[in-house]
Amino acid sequence: MKKLLFIYFFLIGVFIIYVYNYHLQISRSSSFDQENQTLQGKIDEKYVMVTFQSGMDYWKNGLKGFEDAAQALNVSVEYRGATQYDVNEQVTVLEQVIAKKPAGIAISAIDPNKLTETINKAVEQGIPVVLFDSGALSSKAFSFLGTNNYNAGVTAAHKMAELLGKRGKVAVITLPSQLNHQQRTKGFVETIYKEYPEMEVVAVKDGKGDSLASKQAALEIFKQYPDLEGIFATEANGGVGIGEAVSLLAKETKIKVISFDTDKRTLDMVKQGIISATLAQGTWNMGYWSLQFLFHLHHKLTSSLPSGSSLLPSYVDTGITVVTKENVDSFYAK
Amino acid sequence: MKKLLFIYFFLIGVFIIYVYNYHLQISRSSSFDQENQTLQGKIDEKYVMVTFQSGMDYWKNGLKGFEDAAQALNVSVEYRGATQYDVNEQVTVLEQVIAKKPAGIAISAIDPNKLTETINKAVEQGIPVVLFDSGALSSKAFSFLGTNNYNAGVTAAHKMAELLGKRGKVAVITLPSQLNHQQRTKGFVETIYKEYPEMEVVAVKDGKGDSLASKQAALEIFKQYPDLEGIFATEANGGVGIGEAVSLLAKETKIKVISFDTDKRTLDMVKQGIISATLAQGTWNMGYWSLQFLFHLHHKLTSSLPSGSSLLPSYVDTGITVVTKENVDSFYAK
Repeated sequence: MKKLLFIYFFLIGVFIIYVYNYHLQISRSSSFDQENQTLQGKIDEKYVMVTFQSGMDYWKNGLKGFEDAAQALNVSVEYRGATQYDVNEQVTVLEQVIAKKPAGIAISAIDPNKLTETINKAVEQGIPVVLFDSGALSSKAFSFLGTNNYNAGVTAAHKMAELLGKRGKVAVITLPSQLNHQQRTKGFVETIYKEYPEMEVVAVKDGKGDSLASKQAALEIFKQYPDLEGIFATEANGGVGIGEAVSLLAKETKIKVISFDTDKRTLDMVKQGIISATLAQGTWNMGYWSLQFLFHLHHKLTSSLPSGSSLLPSYVDTGITVVTKENVDSFYAK
Repeated sequence: MKKLLFIYFFLIGVFIIYVYNYHLQISRSSSFDQENQTLQGKIDEKYVMVTFQSGMDYWKNGLKGFEDAAQALNVSVEYRGATQYDVNEQVTVLEQVIAKKPAGIAISAIDPNKLTETINKAVEQGIPVVLFDSGALSSKAFSFLGTNNYNAGVTAAHKMAELLGKRGKVAVITLPSQLNHQQRTKGFVETIYKEYPEMEVVAVKDGKGDSLASKQAALEIFKQYPDLEGIFATEANGGVGIGEAVSLLAKETKIKVISFDTDKRTLDMVKQGIISATLAQGTWNMGYWSLQFLFHLHHKLTSSLPSGSSLLPSYVDTGITVVTKENVDSFYAK
């Protein structure tokens, strides 16, 4: 009987400890949740990335950044895009995305103006939107994350000067219809003019964003300027076309080519030494920080700001990395 | 006896449930920790913000952003700085901070060149460094977060045009010895020249960053151009000085003043209608995203990037907000 009574009291004690512990756990986990609340979302919280020509290799790294941020923040992502280079298709895709009321949208705008209305519609419905890679300046999107194209041209000019020992004739093959390519060209031309008095930009030609047209344009420039020493392509197809044109020349003609972006054909030509350098954009950073920004807007984490002030940085320059034979291997898509 | 036996079995049952629950809690919390690993630091992980004239009101919002990010990421921060406007003192402070091997340093450089060596020393020792507000262009710091001063001048020009109905004579009082003030002036002057043909910048004067000197400069301009309609101050002391000068004029002379930053004296003058608008910098964003960037570097969260590529966006434009009578109240420091 005494034994039973002892067990009885022992179990009562355990029961009290249990109840006490249970409450402790509850209060601990709820305070833990509170502390974490800010940078942990819910798995059914969906953020959407919208592009155009959505099958392009170019978007892979940006999407990887977007996904990496989603994993860190414990939220979900979806990838959507116009399959073609078609503004109407992208508007339709964006309308469909808005209809699903996602937690946020990161969009690369195929056209700086024609998407503004649809972007504003999303913002007015309370869906946070940021732009990446290609902006829409007059829209109500909260931020733009992309390459400073003028500075990219400046970087190309300095690299070209380094390759040529700061002297010689150079040319540019570009896509003059697009603003970003105009800016890359301007940064290149102005830097050569201002900082390298023994260098000269003798020609700027339209490569139409096409490797065949760019090859043709390069061959024409070679004919007109047999003493040309360098050529800068402001986009990847142009770089490949120029690479093919250069390969047709006599071996002793060593024209240096600087290209843009890191698709497989470009990287292969860098590896072979046909292209001396290519400029890698910070696409992972575009995707990663786009999602971080959207998450901060969705969770109203900028609430200590004065009302009426800009909630996010207006512009993020995601930077440029010069890719050469030395570091080309790490740039192939994994 | 039966009753006791019943209680006995009941308590045994509770004990089993308790043990079971305990194990469940343990396993849950450990998997939770794993998922959170990426964006939760340790409380003994210390990040340091370093400024100059460290007592200034101006830094308060940036520090608040730095602290808010620290709370969200569960890390610690420390605030250090040169008490004076003295580059040698800031170098000494930075050396002391480096000696303690913090998890990261966000610094606003008093001089674009003279801190480079010490900043590089930190980076070479493996301490992540980002610059905010005032950069050091040639240093090895990973990023710069601050106002695009040229664009701030552009914003001031558009606001001035709006205030004056796109016509009239205007002037600038600035601090021509500092690069950021040169850029603000340039953005303002070029925008008026290019976009507002019926407006004219008739004078640009040195206000020496001092309210008395700026007041004097403003009075001289008023004398020389009695039909002046607007004046832009590129820094806060200048704005206060101009405000005082304007207050001396006859009531029917309604010169519009646009100033910079949001110290108490400036906000008071906005409230009284002496200053029509002032430009608030995104200082909270500078602090918040500086800490986020440092955290990402310290925890190597950019590891999926190709080796050799830039780990962080090279530049973040933290934006400008126009503060007027309508929204001035929310800008007073809390």
